Amino acid sequence: MRTVNPQKVEIRKREIVEAAKICFEQRGFHSTTMAEICAKASISPGALYRYFDSKESIIAAMAEDDQFRAMQSFKSALSEIQNGADFFQTMDKLLDDVVTNYCTKEQGAMAAELISEAMRNPIFAESCSRAYMDLHSHFCAILECGQKLRHIDESLNIAEAATMIMASVDGMVLRMAFCGDVSNIEASRWLKNFCQRYLSPKSQTQSQIKNRA
Amino acid sequence: MRTVNPQKVEIRKREIVEAAKICFEQRGFHSTTMAEICAKASISPGALYRYFDSKESIIAAMAEDDQFRAMQSFKSALSEIQNGADFFQTMDKLLDDVVTNYCTKEQGAMAAELISEAMRNPIFAESCSRAYMDLHSHFCAILECGQKLRHIDESLNIAEAATMIMASVDGMVLRMAFCGDVSNIEASRWLKNFCQRYLSPKSQTQSQIKNRA
Repeated sequence: MRTVNPQKVEIRKREIVEAAKICFEQRGFHSTTMAEICAKASISPGALYRYFDSKESIIAAMAEDDQFRAMQSFKSALSEIQNGADFFQTMDKLLDDVVTNYCTKEQGAMAAELISEAMRNPIFAESCSRAYMDLHSHFCAILECGQKLRHIDESLNIAEAATMIMASVDGMVLRMAFCGDVSNIEASRWLKNFCQRYLSPKSQTQSQIKNRA
Repeated sequence: MRTVNPQKVEIRKREIVEAAKICFEQRGFHSTTMAEICAKASISPGALYRYFDSKESIIAAMAEDDQFRAMQSFKSALSEIQNGADFFQTMDKLLDDVVTNYCTKEQGAMAAELISEAMRNPIFAESCSRAYMDLHSHFCAILECGQKLRHIDESLNIAEAATMIMASVDGMVLRMAFCGDVSNIEASRWLKNFCQRYLSPKSQTQSQIKNRA
């Protein structure tokens, strides 16, 4: 009997997901066939089915990867703020990461594909929505911490603020995917400025905000 | 020779677009066939091709409809503000309209479909991007007017603010399409609160903002 090396399995799965990503970016989920994914990943169909039983399970694994990465950034941002890092500087870093990793034509295309897939596939929609709510509650924890430290306006409802900021980021990712007129530097600066204006206590004067920026 | 009544043509085209919309919402652009659209619109293929030469041109007409409606709201909002209406009250009405008309599962699904179609179809992408930029410049005119009237912080870059607000709205439309936890009333309230906080001059104290809200 062949022994299974879990680390090797993980590496092979990741390679397949990466290969599938390239196919999906070029042709979309629906038009991509398992045969194309096999060709791109240099694997036989028989071998591929040992790792994934359908195109849908590759898509789900891809979405989970993104979710995992985002969750890791949120967790480390929270612990940084808890350990005394400046709230807005930490937010700025998070937003820089988002713009670098997601504000690309490819990632925007993928986000649009994931959403339109979720719209027609209730099981996938259910898992996307759960993943989104999970991210949302982690982001709420970051904002709550900022509110406790009085960097965030105490009158702001945390669930509302988390939803609005996540929506703005999502909207920006999609917008940048199909209009080429905003640069990554602008996107990053604009998102930071927006968070600062939206979250800061209203009693702060403009000059105080400028000094911190 | 048969005479063509332009009004009848417009009505028939609109009926076809509405029928196509229902098909697209249920099965997505790619899976929907022209035959299905014909069946839903109760029209023969030969007759349908007199109005639209391809599925793509139906999709384009659909996008143009939305674009036209949005442009009309922007234009009337601008003239209202120019004629003395309160800036934030006019913005609130615009946002209420957006939530009522676009924050539905169907419209969110359609938006995702349109974006993912644009990602793989350069001609469609070009026209979507032009339409978006057109809306953006009309929205800029509204914000500029608000800035002249000193309802908007004078330090805010108008193109930046227009981009951020449009991104937030887009993100909210998509989010509400696949997570059922935010109600239309909340979405509308949150978007209004966000615009007020983001756009208001920073020197205003919280109490002033509360009084106006």
